[in-house]
Amino acid sequence: MMKHSKGILVVVSGFAGAGKGTIMRQLLENYDNYALSVSMTTRQPRQGERDGVEYFFSSREDFEKKIAEDGLIEYAEYCGNYYGTPRHYVEQQLLSGRDVILEIEIQGAFQVKKKFPEAVLVFVTPPGAAELKRRLVGRGTETMEVIDRRMRRAAEEAEHMGDYDYLVVNDDFRTCAEEIHRIIQASRRKPGCNEEFIEEIKAELKALSKGDN
Amino acid sequence: MMKHSKGILVVVSGFAGAGKGTIMRQLLENYDNYALSVSMTTRQPRQGERDGVEYFFSSREDFEKKIAEDGLIEYAEYCGNYYGTPRHYVEQQLLSGRDVILEIEIQGAFQVKKKFPEAVLVFVTPPGAAELKRRLVGRGTETMEVIDRRMRRAAEEAEHMGDYDYLVVNDDFRTCAEEIHRIIQASRRKPGCNEEFIEEIKAELKALSKGDN
Repeated sequence: MMKHSKGILVVVSGFAGAGKGTIMRQLLENYDNYALSVSMTTRQPRQGERDGVEYFFSSREDFEKKIAEDGLIEYAEYCGNYYGTPRHYVEQQLLSGRDVILEIEIQGAFQVKKKFPEAVLVFVTPPGAAELKRRLVGRGTETMEVIDRRMRRAAEEAEHMGDYDYLVVNDDFRTCAEEIHRIIQASRRKPGCNEEFIEEIKAELKALSKGDN
Repeated sequence: MMKHSKGILVVVSGFAGAGKGTIMRQLLENYDNYALSVSMTTRQPRQGERDGVEYFFSSREDFEKKIAEDGLIEYAEYCGNYYGTPRHYVEQQLLSGRDVILEIEIQGAFQVKKKFPEAVLVFVTPPGAAELKRRLVGRGTETMEVIDRRMRRAAEEAEHMGDYDYLVVNDDFRTCAEEIHRIIQASRRKPGCNEEFIEEIKAELKALSKGDN
């Protein structure tokens, strides 16, 4: 009977270069109980980005309308563009029993936790700062100036790591994805995800302990 | 570096007849990172019980001395006898990195949570109340009066199920032990168990983002 429980809302954050994207793909490939939420943004699509896949692209006006009608479970503005998570898809998937993963920034993560206290916040980190720098440099696509900016940002973000529910080290992406999967599965055993079961067994125990049966 | 973390303190409670004993044995057999705490009691040893194995048997005087010197992490009195968990063994095992399991009653469980907020409280339940009664009757060792008393007690205990961190259904004891194992492993990823790692990476990120390296 615990199988009919609602899905878990999972927030995954982490430093740029921590390997979140690869881990998400691994999770979605290996397990079919996950749904990845697609963010909405007002920024222009980049080459190759498709509406509804990488992002839902929206006008500023439509985005602000969404905010006004409480249609986003979190949002933030970066560099003059809005980014947010549409509420409808998330709630629909949770109700159907699927676990929904949001890959979002720290600021959004804490907004989600406020609205969904049962949400599980996972922070992905490389084994160390030197390794993070090595990965950013290794990409070979960014200037040293951009890499330095990312490192400074990571130092700021690290101040909030301790406020996440779980901290996962991405040493090997397969192991890391497996670890996140187990954390999510364990979270399904929290009482908040099994209220129906608790009420049922309470009522049943009361009935049977009165000797009605 | 996250391997050097302290062990997890795990409290397992559940209705009499839920199968906690079998699950504990399964956990200790299958994994070597667990240490089972042995309770101290003032009740008389029953046939076959050995001091230091089933319980540490103690005089009332010695038990009260332990209480006075804060040598127990939880204790309670049932039917005129004291039962408690000696602090020394638990702390020693946690420091050495082993996960310590306490199989104790609800009252003690919440005492532990107060003193060790990082402790993980697991409640084991059969799939339903009818199944619980079937198991108690099936043992064939108890009178119907005793069974009725246990069922009433279960109904009372069920009121506190929702205050545990996790709720695990014992349908098959192997699956159930595996599930508890995973819950404990996931708990090792909580920030509170990885403070050293967090401080290290914070310091390292600060150093590297200043361009010192």
